[in-house]
Amino acid sequence: MLKRTFNINGALKTVIVDPEATLGDVLRKQLMLTGTKVSCDDGHCGACSVIVDGKLTLACITKVNRVPENAKIITIEGIGQPNNLHVIQKAMMAHGAAQCGFCTPGFVVSTKALLEKNPKPTREEVRAWFTQHHNACRCTGYKPIVDAVMDAAAVLRGEKKVEDLEFKMPADGRIWGSKYPRPTAEQKVTGTLDYGQDLGLKMPPGTLHLALVQAKVSHANILSIDTSEAEKMPGVFKVVTHKDVLGKNRITGLITFPTNKGDGWDRPILCDTKVFQYGDAIAIVCADTPEQAKAAAEKVRVELEILPAYMSAPAAMAPDAIEIHPGTPNVYFEQKIAKGKDTAPIMETAPYVVEDSFYLQRQPHLTIEGDMGFAYYDENECLTIHTKSIGLYLHLYMIAPGLGVEPNKLRLVQNPAGGTFGYKFCPTMEALLGVACIATKRPVYLEYDYEQYMTYTGKRSPFFVDLKMAADKNGKIVAMESDWTVDHGPYSEFGDLLTLRGAQYIGAGYNIPNIRGMGRTVCTNHAWGAPFRAYGSPQAFLASESLVDELAEKMGIDPLEFRYNNVYRPGDTTPTGQAPEVYSLPEMLDALRPLYKQAKEKAARESTAENRKGVGIAIGIYGSGLDGVDGAEAKIVLGKDGVTVYATWQDHGQGADAGVLGTAHESLRPLGLRPDQIYLALNDTGTAPNGGPSGGSRSQVVIGNAIKNGCDQLIAAMRKPNGSFRTYDEMVAAKLPLEYVGKWAASENSNCDANGQGNPFAVYMYGAFLAEVTVNTKTGKTTVDGMTIMADAGVINNKLVVDGQIYGGVAQGIGLALSEDFEDIEKHNNMRGAGIPYARDIPDKMDIYYFQTPRPSGPFGAAGVGELPLTSPHVAVINAIYHATGVRIRHLPARPEKVLDGLKEVEPMPV
Amino acid sequence: MLKRTFNINGALKTVIVDPEATLGDVLRKQLMLTGTKVSCDDGHCGACSVIVDGKLTLACITKVNRVPENAKIITIEGIGQPNNLHVIQKAMMAHGAAQCGFCTPGFVVSTKALLEKNPKPTREEVRAWFTQHHNACRCTGYKPIVDAVMDAAAVLRGEKKVEDLEFKMPADGRIWGSKYPRPTAEQKVTGTLDYGQDLGLKMPPGTLHLALVQAKVSHANILSIDTSEAEKMPGVFKVVTHKDVLGKNRITGLITFPTNKGDGWDRPILCDTKVFQYGDAIAIVCADTPEQAKAAAEKVRVELEILPAYMSAPAAMAPDAIEIHPGTPNVYFEQKIAKGKDTAPIMETAPYVVEDSFYLQRQPHLTIEGDMGFAYYDENECLTIHTKSIGLYLHLYMIAPGLGVEPNKLRLVQNPAGGTFGYKFCPTMEALLGVACIATKRPVYLEYDYEQYMTYTGKRSPFFVDLKMAADKNGKIVAMESDWTVDHGPYSEFGDLLTLRGAQYIGAGYNIPNIRGMGRTVCTNHAWGAPFRAYGSPQAFLASESLVDELAEKMGIDPLEFRYNNVYRPGDTTPTGQAPEVYSLPEMLDALRPLYKQAKEKAARESTAENRKGVGIAIGIYGSGLDGVDGAEAKIVLGKDGVTVYATWQDHGQGADAGVLGTAHESLRPLGLRPDQIYLALNDTGTAPNGGPSGGSRSQVVIGNAIKNGCDQLIAAMRKPNGSFRTYDEMVAAKLPLEYVGKWAASENSNCDANGQGNPFAVYMYGAFLAEVTVNTKTGKTTVDGMTIMADAGVINNKLVVDGQIYGGVAQGIGLALSEDFEDIEKHNNMRGAGIPYARDIPDKMDIYYFQTPRPSGPFGAAGVGELPLTSPHVAVINAIYHATGVRIRHLPARPEKVLDGLKEVEPMPV
Repeated sequence: MLKRTFNINGALKTVIVDPEATLGDVLRKQLMLTGTKVSCDDGHCGACSVIVDGKLTLACITKVNRVPENAKIITIEGIGQPNNLHVIQKAMMAHGAAQCGFCTPGFVVSTKALLEKNPKPTREEVRAWFTQHHNACRCTGYKPIVDAVMDAAAVLRGEKKVEDLEFKMPADGRIWGSKYPRPTAEQKVTGTLDYGQDLGLKMPPGTLHLALVQAKVSHANILSIDTSEAEKMPGVFKVVTHKDVLGKNRITGLITFPTNKGDGWDRPILCDTKVFQYGDAIAIVCADTPEQAKAAAEKVRVELEILPAYMSAPAAMAPDAIEIHPGTPNVYFEQKIAKGKDTAPIMETAPYVVEDSFYLQRQPHLTIEGDMGFAYYDENECLTIHTKSIGLYLHLYMIAPGLGVEPNKLRLVQNPAGGTFGYKFCPTMEALLGVACIATKRPVYLEYDYEQYMTYTGKRSPFFVDLKMAADKNGKIVAMESDWTVDHGPYSEFGDLLTLRGAQYIGAGYNIPNIRGMGRTVCTNHAWGAPFRAYGSPQAFLASESLVDELAEKMGIDPLEFRYNNVYRPGDTTPTGQAPEVYSLPEMLDALRPLYKQAKEKAARESTAENRKGVGIAIGIYGSGLDGVDGAEAKIVLGKDGVTVYATWQDHGQGADAGVLGTAHESLRPLGLRPDQIYLALNDTGTAPNGGPSGGSRSQVVIGNAIKNGCDQLIAAMRKPNGSFRTYDEMVAAKLPLEYVGKWAASENSNCDANGQGNPFAVYMYGAFLAEVTVNTKTGKTTVDGMTIMADAGVINNKLVVDGQIYGGVAQGIGLALSEDFEDIEKHNNMRGAGIPYARDIPDKMDIYYFQTPRPSGPFGAAGVGELPLTSPHVAVINAIYHATGVRIRHLPARPEKVLDGLKEVEPMPV
Repeated sequence: MLKRTFNINGALKTVIVDPEATLGDVLRKQLMLTGTKVSCDDGHCGACSVIVDGKLTLACITKVNRVPENAKIITIEGIGQPNNLHVIQKAMMAHGAAQCGFCTPGFVVSTKALLEKNPKPTREEVRAWFTQHHNACRCTGYKPIVDAVMDAAAVLRGEKKVEDLEFKMPADGRIWGSKYPRPTAEQKVTGTLDYGQDLGLKMPPGTLHLALVQAKVSHANILSIDTSEAEKMPGVFKVVTHKDVLGKNRITGLITFPTNKGDGWDRPILCDTKVFQYGDAIAIVCADTPEQAKAAAEKVRVELEILPAYMSAPAAMAPDAIEIHPGTPNVYFEQKIAKGKDTAPIMETAPYVVEDSFYLQRQPHLTIEGDMGFAYYDENECLTIHTKSIGLYLHLYMIAPGLGVEPNKLRLVQNPAGGTFGYKFCPTMEALLGVACIATKRPVYLEYDYEQYMTYTGKRSPFFVDLKMAADKNGKIVAMESDWTVDHGPYSEFGDLLTLRGAQYIGAGYNIPNIRGMGRTVCTNHAWGAPFRAYGSPQAFLASESLVDELAEKMGIDPLEFRYNNVYRPGDTTPTGQAPEVYSLPEMLDALRPLYKQAKEKAARESTAENRKGVGIAIGIYGSGLDGVDGAEAKIVLGKDGVTVYATWQDHGQGADAGVLGTAHESLRPLGLRPDQIYLALNDTGTAPNGGPSGGSRSQVVIGNAIKNGCDQLIAAMRKPNGSFRTYDEMVAAKLPLEYVGKWAASENSNCDANGQGNPFAVYMYGAFLAEVTVNTKTGKTTVDGMTIMADAGVINNKLVVDGQIYGGVAQGIGLALSEDFEDIEKHNNMRGAGIPYARDIPDKMDIYYFQTPRPSGPFGAAGVGELPLTSPHVAVINAIYHATGVRIRHLPARPEKVLDGLKEVEPMPV
């Protein structure tokens, strides 16, 4: 051990450290300065940025014995505190630069170091700084952060006033549609918001720390599990295996379609007979400390019979492939689509027919925060599980039978989440925590390291799509034939639903009168398929928005004009035969046209032999909701000094707090409440009613409507005959209820039928993307120079939130197009290896144009927003690469070597 | 478990808590908000004060389940931070209100709550508030705190400027003699200074937590120790007993006098054959968590043969008493004093002779912080032990043989100490930590709860003194006969030295030509005797300063004038025959005379039958140093941006930081350094040379001289022929040494001989105390209305430090006089039971008059100061009670029942 004294945030701190410990662990785990986040533990993400003797330093890879005695260390806690914010923090709040907020302390610290070195940076210098120092953000697309840095620098130089960074309440007191900072913003910019890993350090005495014994192979039979040696290790309280599980030891997919050949009970909590994928949990060591748990986990002996691992859908579909889940065929679900007339005759006769094959990869969510959670028994003896779950009630019912717990004795709570983007639509460790807590009757905490998080949480399922389209001589699409195969990994949950998304979104945006197609879900041994933002649609649009370009080219029509000819107009229907609720695509393309032209001219002007420039477009559509009659509840309670909203509007980081606050504040406007009089009691099944999961951009519409309904009930009860409102005391005196459960359901909707036809969504989001790229023909590297986004997400609740969603989603689309993948378990199990985009990978030019078409079914006209920006921006990039080089990338990501290979095959384009 | 969300310092914090946990534990141990201190754990000390929903709350006795959901909690961390100080914090710094600083966060928080409720409090209201809310301070005597509150309130009301609270550097850049705030002040007022208990929460992973198995009887033979059941308890790594101790398993007193009948090896580290006092350590459980260690400690079975417990010196001296340490008589040391002629004939013939018997009680140190420490192996495989030790090198050599470790493989470090006042001159847990660390090879942490701290650390040893004095007809003292018996508890360390103090200080201050006396040290089974501020002198002065009053009364001379007649003047000698180095007592008494007269007139004027008022005086003297040739070393190192001082100037809380800084800054003035260019590397035997222990007010003189010497050497080396100074770079270029070891020793001094004669100290401190009291004749309660202090502590280094030492020492004297005791192990084992004075128990009127007589042997003329104010203020109070009521209290403390008993015996005094 070393005795070290550091000056930390202006105070001398002596600390006894293991010389091999990292500065990050010393700061967080010993000094409990949890504003500094440690996640990747590999120097990839910058969440751990601190300043050491004036130098920006990644605490997670800095051994504490390298930090000199008396070093001056500045952490986020030393930069500013709630009620004493630094200008950088105010600027971050003003620009919505903190979404999930997990990376924010690192960015604030990094900005501090930057501005001390360079008080007047250019935007490009800011991006270069963040890239050089590995400050990764997965939510914001970097633009709001750069905006904040520029403003903070201007204030520090005396060129702007700090007051300009502070929100000004409008005269009418209305925050709907404004840039009101989200309620959690102040805590996010100050590092005072405790995420799961922080809460894990702050657990009560007696908490056991868990370590998993995991499979290091992808497919095997389990012959034996021997825990005897591990049980004897220091600090071990118990080693839990499947034998300790009181219930069915399976997580159920719950919403398995009737035609699914499986029963949905295929995912073990703790493996008993088989290992289905790399990382599968076989045992849980429960010990006093994390170190003891990990050491003992090494001592559990598992005897395996290795089986062939089917690491892609084609492999699992091979005739000699064995059934991964014995008794269920590897192709366990099929979804047909049949709209209009038979397409075969049309394809034969149509003047323009194109067909092509596409593959969209296993995109990793790459949240900056990994995965962690804890469990305990609450005061009512309810097993209470805290995780990053974005589907609290959903998960409750998915895991209760497996645990052997009655649902009313199970309580799920969401911790502040450092990003999910959908991976937490699946339970990850919920059931493991439950099993360990039941077996030990002690509070338990489990944290995955980043590699565990990468290998043992779900990923976007790859689609193999074969697509054929026909157009008539007028440039109207007349028919489409589709075939899509979904590699869903070993666990079926939501796999059928995802496959249905292929039917719903391949070709969406266009009125295609005749469609025939078939999709299928395939069980494999690669990472299980989990929802990811825009679930199913990036796969669908890769095929249809690429092929539309090919079709336009074949016809010699400009791709924009071809799209303009075909997008939804009144009377048209979606692939599922639904009439869109609004028709904003033609207006969008009209607005995009001049920008597109300018971009093409600019590309032509600036393109060189080495740096080819190109422009691509794509349209994107996504439904806001779960399929069919999606509903939610929310509870509105009048208190003495305001109103409390109890809801499960789970937060990926998107801004559930702002969503709830904006909706409730707008709903309650007759009462004239200030925003700080609306209290949020979110995401705890112990206190809030079922709002459904937060996915598919449903929350603003479905939960938002439930909140509005509850508020309406409250206002009605408070209204006096003369039109004024009863006070809280008057309500109590009049013995009127103070609690109102708001409800809403998309009662006009219906699930899709066997032919993929129906009216699944009450509200859709519509968008169009224009990408400008440069392709270096020597390296094959593609740089996105700009993205223009046309977005109709209905009437906007919170401008900062909606801007942020779009910037962030588009950035993920660029990563999807160019770099992101989780194919190779060895290479892709870390942030850089998996291709996370840094600030310089995302263009500074990201222009959003809003088309706020009010939605009849949305509260105050709102639609959702989260999925829209990741429907098809990647296809705009892919189309732009083609425009620049003639190389069409059909198998994503378009990594440089793939582009180089393509360049070898095509004729050089004229410059 | 409960899930609770609180707004803590402006941030929402969700935390999972055991409903039975205290708010204090949740804040400190879960949220690591260690600015809030928890010590007494009983609501007695207020160190844990926080504000909950606007209400000042003692966190240590508030169950967290009583704190409402969403409660707004303000802790010290939320009031102000380094570089963002609150006005209250600035005022506390300006007034030196933080000495050890352990209670300071509680006082800052308490002040915040007070000023929010009452923005313009009177001084009396401030004292009432702190008393009502149990904010106890053991260092400051409360006055600097009240001063700070008044100033902070004035600033907050806009009546003063905050700038007036900030230290202004004088034009000449000199801080010597100024009110420069001590370097640790900012951290103390912000709660950012980590004390032992805070460091204990911040230990590295793998640290074991220790719990002691302790004796619950005071004297016994050990028949067996069975650890088998405890070893099997969860989380237990090892149970350590005497069998695991590699060395002699004894702590040596080191400086045992040759005539001591014991060998100094009487104190076991872990009891083997016998239990000698209540609380003696028999085994140490080493476990993963404190809770596990405590639970397992309950399972260790110890079989005892109970022996008679000798709980006072007379009991242990009874003829039938067995030897507590077999082979060594219970009276194990005797110290004679023989000065001048035989006194027997003088006593027979002198015109005025008085004699009386006195008892000074077992005063508990009552530090607000208890006792704790930790150990680990450092990077050089040195066993490193951190405690509150104020004698690092001393303790190193005291424990090394017992542990079986070579001294060069042992390293002792002092943690910031929340007060010691001398109890840490003895090792408390150092050797236990060492044994546990050696046995486990793991970092180990041990913390005593307040009861353990009270019962198992040393106390001031009671003295039974019989004293006789004779005066001639001119009012000159001509002879003294003394007999004193020291109840030193079971462990001999420093007991002989303490007994010598009786010889040195009984009758000190007066030129007494003829003295005969004998003191003895007695082994008992009550708490072991440890040094306590003014070590030995409060016992000595209780006797001589009481008896001087009796003698004056007998002669009909005013007690002040009688003293004035007899105090040291040139040609006089101390009881040990030493010529004082300066003669400031006559001047002091001249200055005191008019104040004393006024006080007496006021008392006479205001006295009523119910509330009798009286005035008493006493003089006090104490040597600054260890007896004889006391020496020290300190290392001065030139660095690029300043000078670092390496020293073991241990800090009780008195201000070692300010002492070192002031001395070094003054010494280095030719170099023109700013104070912040002098770095302090204090109190680590791994880096600093041996400065000796910090006791007996020796540090400023002995270590101060060593620092000055080192600085002088450095300056000499840096001086160029032209009188200017080499820079660091020039020193390096010239290959001149950068490190200088300063040395100093009191080479003119000598130890006292068998007759108690010698020149033990180079420098003495001189003082006189005037107490004004009110005695309520119905309740017997004495209130001290005012204290006036005449002090000659030489030339003052830091005014805030010296003021603070005097206020605090006098307050401890008031407690000694009126309330403090540790006699009953059951009743007196907590702060209130042991009689700690609160703010209303200490007068607001405390007037200090300085007589800065330069000391020839003190650096820049300085003496020490710490012991002076506790030499005899209690006797001034006791004399004042006599003056008010005619009741002479001879057996301290003067608790109300004792005064009432006395009142029954005396004639009512005329009012």
